[in-house]
Amino acid sequence: MRIIRLDVEYDGTHFSGWAEQPERRTCEGELRRALGLVLRVPVDLCVAGRTDAGVHASGQVASFAVDSGVDLRRVAKSLAGVLPQDIAVRAISDAPPGFDARRSALSRSYAYRVLAGPRSPLRRARVLHHPQPLDLAAMNRAASACVGKHDFTAFTPTKTDHVFFNRTVFRCRWEQRGDELVFGVEADAFLRNMVRILVGTMLEIGRGSRSVDDIAQLVRGAPRSAAGRTAPAHPLVLVGVRYPGAATAGPILGGAE
Amino acid sequence: MRIIRLDVEYDGTHFSGWAEQPERRTCEGELRRALGLVLRVPVDLCVAGRTDAGVHASGQVASFAVDSGVDLRRVAKSLAGVLPQDIAVRAISDAPPGFDARRSALSRSYAYRVLAGPRSPLRRARVLHHPQPLDLAAMNRAASACVGKHDFTAFTPTKTDHVFFNRTVFRCRWEQRGDELVFGVEADAFLRNMVRILVGTMLEIGRGSRSVDDIAQLVRGAPRSAAGRTAPAHPLVLVGVRYPGAATAGPILGGAE
Repeated sequence: MRIIRLDVEYDGTHFSGWAEQPERRTCEGELRRALGLVLRVPVDLCVAGRTDAGVHASGQVASFAVDSGVDLRRVAKSLAGVLPQDIAVRAISDAPPGFDARRSALSRSYAYRVLAGPRSPLRRARVLHHPQPLDLAAMNRAASACVGKHDFTAFTPTKTDHVFFNRTVFRCRWEQRGDELVFGVEADAFLRNMVRILVGTMLEIGRGSRSVDDIAQLVRGAPRSAAGRTAPAHPLVLVGVRYPGAATAGPILGGAE
Repeated sequence: MRIIRLDVEYDGTHFSGWAEQPERRTCEGELRRALGLVLRVPVDLCVAGRTDAGVHASGQVASFAVDSGVDLRRVAKSLAGVLPQDIAVRAISDAPPGFDARRSALSRSYAYRVLAGPRSPLRRARVLHHPQPLDLAAMNRAASACVGKHDFTAFTPTKTDHVFFNRTVFRCRWEQRGDELVFGVEADAFLRNMVRILVGTMLEIGRGSRSVDDIAQLVRGAPRSAAGRTAPAHPLVLVGVRYPGAATAGPILGGAE
């Protein structure tokens, strides 16, 4: 069996998230449809991050098994012809034996952009506009408190398919970049809505309407109601996935839009 | 008379360009409508760059005269409430006596983004996708030949309102930035479509379908038919305008999207 790895980018605006659902336009659905047309056999996709509706990816990774001697250059070219404009396979390669885009992943990294200044028409589809001043130092104290293995129950909806709520956060920080504050977070895995609820909670801290000290309690299995609001989906991007053998992950916050 | 300067950003996608036209949605039209609502008097706008339909601006400058003692903070706040999402006043200030956004400008700078690699769904609204390889060195030899005072007749449509075709180009170069080639050009002023025809012609040089040596002839008053195609509008941004007394212009290619 040959395992093929796909590096995928999509604009999540017009997708009902990654995971295939009946009657909905999804990333997985579009990619499986395109692969079926090109390979002439149905494939099952594994994916590193099941992003929500409206969330983007610049560094999503998917994998599937094929038994044929397919020519990857031809597949890449044919996929480009049948995929819609808002999703693209940016790289296609043979993966090591036993590779599974989900189970082999060591970590996922997300970035979330907040514009803390005048409104920007050119960036409005990619940033959260937050005109009030934010206390970056306080937000970074809260971000530091998230690093490590914690119970993130407060950071996912109460109605859930998750069974375990412990996750290990490797890196978590806010960075000023021009007139934006960009949140970068890397963890072994994420609960549903986890990044957006982390951002919503830290924005309350940045505005001064919540204490920094709250975070230490929140990451010890507090209920959902104790954390902040879920921030909007459109400024969130899955920027990368790390696998064994790959070079150390670069900066989460690097890379042009 | 008090002169007010507006620093304006817009997403040109759904505008028929800057200049007001009957029955069309234009940047000038939207801005004059908003200013009329806020100031309760009609204003005449001067503008640094009359961008074409579909062209964006991150650093457009406009000016107008008022005789009243208006409070600029209040005007800024009110404008934010009445302008549509795709245009914003990012700064409002008192200009020096005699300031005119068009006549006082020393130069305008534009940037044009070309993606020379796999398709990028997240950037598709802002870059020209050019999958074939491009010879950056050849394109930069052509760009260098544009610097100086030249007759750019070949770089504007034959049917024209322009009377003089000499323009002075101060800076002109292509720069590799990740998987993009970004063209930056600064000149005292530009003819209609000039940047897009420069880009279209240099892309032909980059593909090898036109000689670098053509440029030297083209900038000596050759006819429009001698130059290349007009590149699409959507990757073009007016990034800045320079005025006397301001610090030396920064890099054209700097700044986040």
